[in-house]
Amino acid sequence: MEFPKLSQIQSPRDIKDYSDQESDELAQEIREALYQVVSDRTAHFASNLGVVELCIGLHQIFDFSKDRLIWDTGHQIYPHKLVTGRFNEFTTIRHQGGLMGYPHPGESPYDLFMTGHAGCSVSTTLGLKAADDLLYPEDDRKSVAVIGDGALPSGIVFEAMNNAAGLNKDMLVILNDNKMGICPRVGGLASYLDKARTAPFYNGLKKDVSWLLNKLPVLGEPVAEQLMHFKDAVKTYLHGGMLFEEMGFRYIGPVDGHDLPRLKEALRMVKDVKGPVLLHVFTEKGHGFEPACADPVTFHSPAPFERDENNEIVPIKKSSSPAYTNIVSQTVYDRMERDDKVVIMTAAMCAGNNLDKIRDDFPERFFDVGICESHAVAFAAGMAKSGARPIVDIYSTFLQRSFDQIFQEVALQNLPVTFCMDRAGICGPDGPTHHGVFDNSYMRIFPNMVVTAPGDASDVAPLLDFALTYDGPVSLRYPKCSAATVERQVAPIELGKSEVYSSGADGTIIACGALFPDCIEAANLLKEKGLDVGVINARFIKPLDTETIFKALDETGFVLTVEENVIAGGFGSAVLEAANGAGLRTGHLRCLGIPDEFVEHGDRAELLSGLGLDAEGIARAAESMAGQNSLI
Amino acid sequence: MEFPKLSQIQSPRDIKDYSDQESDELAQEIREALYQVVSDRTAHFASNLGVVELCIGLHQIFDFSKDRLIWDTGHQIYPHKLVTGRFNEFTTIRHQGGLMGYPHPGESPYDLFMTGHAGCSVSTTLGLKAADDLLYPEDDRKSVAVIGDGALPSGIVFEAMNNAAGLNKDMLVILNDNKMGICPRVGGLASYLDKARTAPFYNGLKKDVSWLLNKLPVLGEPVAEQLMHFKDAVKTYLHGGMLFEEMGFRYIGPVDGHDLPRLKEALRMVKDVKGPVLLHVFTEKGHGFEPACADPVTFHSPAPFERDENNEIVPIKKSSSPAYTNIVSQTVYDRMERDDKVVIMTAAMCAGNNLDKIRDDFPERFFDVGICESHAVAFAAGMAKSGARPIVDIYSTFLQRSFDQIFQEVALQNLPVTFCMDRAGICGPDGPTHHGVFDNSYMRIFPNMVVTAPGDASDVAPLLDFALTYDGPVSLRYPKCSAATVERQVAPIELGKSEVYSSGADGTIIACGALFPDCIEAANLLKEKGLDVGVINARFIKPLDTETIFKALDETGFVLTVEENVIAGGFGSAVLEAANGAGLRTGHLRCLGIPDEFVEHGDRAELLSGLGLDAEGIARAAESMAGQNSLI
Repeated sequence: MEFPKLSQIQSPRDIKDYSDQESDELAQEIREALYQVVSDRTAHFASNLGVVELCIGLHQIFDFSKDRLIWDTGHQIYPHKLVTGRFNEFTTIRHQGGLMGYPHPGESPYDLFMTGHAGCSVSTTLGLKAADDLLYPEDDRKSVAVIGDGALPSGIVFEAMNNAAGLNKDMLVILNDNKMGICPRVGGLASYLDKARTAPFYNGLKKDVSWLLNKLPVLGEPVAEQLMHFKDAVKTYLHGGMLFEEMGFRYIGPVDGHDLPRLKEALRMVKDVKGPVLLHVFTEKGHGFEPACADPVTFHSPAPFERDENNEIVPIKKSSSPAYTNIVSQTVYDRMERDDKVVIMTAAMCAGNNLDKIRDDFPERFFDVGICESHAVAFAAGMAKSGARPIVDIYSTFLQRSFDQIFQEVALQNLPVTFCMDRAGICGPDGPTHHGVFDNSYMRIFPNMVVTAPGDASDVAPLLDFALTYDGPVSLRYPKCSAATVERQVAPIELGKSEVYSSGADGTIIACGALFPDCIEAANLLKEKGLDVGVINARFIKPLDTETIFKALDETGFVLTVEENVIAGGFGSAVLEAANGAGLRTGHLRCLGIPDEFVEHGDRAELLSGLGLDAEGIARAAESMAGQNSLI
Repeated sequence: MEFPKLSQIQSPRDIKDYSDQESDELAQEIREALYQVVSDRTAHFASNLGVVELCIGLHQIFDFSKDRLIWDTGHQIYPHKLVTGRFNEFTTIRHQGGLMGYPHPGESPYDLFMTGHAGCSVSTTLGLKAADDLLYPEDDRKSVAVIGDGALPSGIVFEAMNNAAGLNKDMLVILNDNKMGICPRVGGLASYLDKARTAPFYNGLKKDVSWLLNKLPVLGEPVAEQLMHFKDAVKTYLHGGMLFEEMGFRYIGPVDGHDLPRLKEALRMVKDVKGPVLLHVFTEKGHGFEPACADPVTFHSPAPFERDENNEIVPIKKSSSPAYTNIVSQTVYDRMERDDKVVIMTAAMCAGNNLDKIRDDFPERFFDVGICESHAVAFAAGMAKSGARPIVDIYSTFLQRSFDQIFQEVALQNLPVTFCMDRAGICGPDGPTHHGVFDNSYMRIFPNMVVTAPGDASDVAPLLDFALTYDGPVSLRYPKCSAATVERQVAPIELGKSEVYSSGADGTIIACGALFPDCIEAANLLKEKGLDVGVINARFIKPLDTETIFKALDETGFVLTVEENVIAGGFGSAVLEAANGAGLRTGHLRCLGIPDEFVEHGDRAELLSGLGLDAEGIARAAESMAGQNSLI
């Protein structure tokens, strides 16, 4: 397909005066561009298909060269990138050095914030508006947040709405309601929004409602006096927006998010409304691509696919060895079968964490709390206090939302909550909002917390078993990749004990987590160069196996710690602290990890290689140390 | 006054069958006990006075030897401590080794969670209930959370209510609505709750309302069909509880929280209601003590006081030198006077952060967002993006709520937000939920973040000036204490530069933050013992002044880092990382800080002394190093 429109668009100004017909053609081109990109790589798809008309409408009604627009969560940013002059680079999206799969201020002035963690758009939009009013009062800059119903239950949204209503700022929150997060939405709010779909207003009963409203004022005293706002209440109820109205927002909608002329009419109407406004837009995740509509969970961020001879969608490739995610979910499933006390929490990542089977087979012990990580952890703490054995299964980077609950509700109370931190380390093409490279540093600072990382596939089940019987909180971290299995006599798990895989007089590499196989490979590379280097599988970041580590420091030429975490405060730092505290020399100790900068998006292996965190990089670092005077 | 009842109460069972008269007498005794304690020390007062009847009623209607009760935030726990058998130890409250000023599971099985950070009670109560249902289905254990209207806007409450409604668990949330947080409540929710006070139901119009409700079904088709739930809607609107009903809770109330018979009637009624219920209770902060009702902000946690000859309340003592908090607020005030771009956010801590004058004089640039730390930071990021210079003024421990927003909204975007982290370090009698001993570790792990700590009063204004002109995020930490002024020629602030106060051949103490004067005193003590020890005022935790620090490592006998933060990942750890990364010897470097355990409550100076973080402790540590072989 040709892209006669997209190829010409330099900025959203170019689409401002499009006729309905031209806008339709543009929408088709955008969908085709999306289809081409996701056929080729894993990328966000269904969510982007759902906002094509909304994106076009917003850029036609507003002027975001001065107005403010934040796409919450950001994985639905592709159409926005296409209409803001990035079509020519679009095929580079999610590749290293190419466009980011999320908004990126470095790419375009139309991207204001890198988003990725859900729910902050209302806060940042309110902040933009508050400062614009203060600093550029004459400009009348509009502020718009587009937030999905999946992100809506996130606590910060509620906090921001409370503040927006209090400040009474002119701002527009567009609720992009597709009945989904990445997984189907859950909770009281989900039922609430479902009701809106059957509200009389949406079903065209406007006239009858007006009749009713006009009827009401004839009611007698003293009730009538008390009911000054009664009409409003009834009206809002019929609109289905009472929740938002009670919060102090003006609720407008719902409108069909794929009927562009109507949508633009609604946007024109709300553009100049005073005070905070919520526009409720119904969209369909996957709109315009039938398989995605039918299965929006799979097509949220599908693996590359093609159509076979029967025009059926088939994935292009499958990964070879099982991913850590799958090993963890399978192990959790087994333990839940055996032990009725084991329960599991996910924060809207049933699919990402591969928990569908657990959800289906143990519905009483599976809790999808929505994108509410803070609550997930405090809720787990409550369950632990009552005697359950909760597992909190959340991506490392999203668990940052629970930092304070990990502190107060779990560590301070010393409750036996198990944290499965998926996507720890470099996560790949999603980029810096999704890399989980801080948890070694932030988990170990809390007293009582035991911090672990399986070194390979074999470590996962024993570590989980350890966690589920330990009398206190335990965290496990593992990356988004297939899990190698290191051939060996696997040492049993013991609190604070590492596993000595091999010994070497010239030096020791201590692997923290899933880079263990790479460290072995590095040792093999070093052997070819005549260096005798041992490898330790750390397993525990806290408590540290000081006995084994100190022995290595004492007896081998150098020690190199290796972790997929920032160096600041990480595993290596813990080793340094312990050795220093014990008065040991550490001049022959070096820490390999992620330097003090945000890592961009790209292929996981390429990024790790660039950071020196592959076998070659580890070998290089070790070799350079072997060459040093190790007696300082 | 005698305490004939309190002195006899071993457990809440003893008050179960009290007559109204006896309950009244108990309430009086509790108020007297509260008055006696707070006359003697700084302690929470007004909030405790407000829940006396609620506490008695709860223990009379429920049986919390099996039922579950969480007091959110926990500073209103005193009456609960008194009726659960802790009267005899009550005078020890907030003293080291005595009762904690918050719930403490170590003290009593009636205290389930140490609370202190607001808003988690709904989550933990839901967790307790979910596990109780799973593990002890036959027990029918009730679950009750008591949450103030100040804590209500905290996002996690919303997350928990969403989940509770989705799970449809039988649980009771009591909204203890006293129109206040520590400061007057703010935001859309505040207006919403204000409305409830004027709702017809509360004002006795029940009969008229019923008349109206009976009138409605006569309305004709087709409207009537659509209005099946119309009655409910109207009813709920009149109750003022639509917001909660829309969230999926059953709303009951409001009831007068000081009319014990009525309150107990309401509690009896809601006890067996199915599904999640919100009981709205109106209380008066300070009830029963007129000065506290008149000024609940001051009497939230007043300094010790007595009555003078005119029966007026007078504080017993004042602190001598100005607190860091006051120096910061005065400096911020000055900068706001000079620069229209400077704005400030607080999270319901206008009083604690001493921001009243700023609020009154710069209402357009002062933002109290309520207990919504996550939002505060994302909101600040939005303002920074639009060109303002926001200052986020939040206690170190509460800022933990914003960990993820500090990461994504501020550090990742490299936006110029200034963090004033009050109560960093040991905060004293509030205990482990309030100590701010993790921020050195958690702030420095994020790229782009500049992390600083003023060494004394003189450093505050220059560091704030630096922060407000720096092109990126900067944090300042300072403790809850009066700020000494070190006599010296103050070196100007420069990014990543420490201040060399004195040099010494035998060793160097590097002070991180407000322990700087204690380090000088330690050096003086060491001088008396013939040791020549220099002192450096670090000022920057990140970037580190490696030049000066490496020089000290190179040229002096030992180096001792001193900080009021956990050792894990703290300032000392940063020094270790840097020195090790540069290949320097570090055998003569030691890190003084807080070990890997939670620090209990007590007097700040006593706690610091116990941790070896006073002049004597620092001198001891230095002396022991001076005696070591420093050539390892």
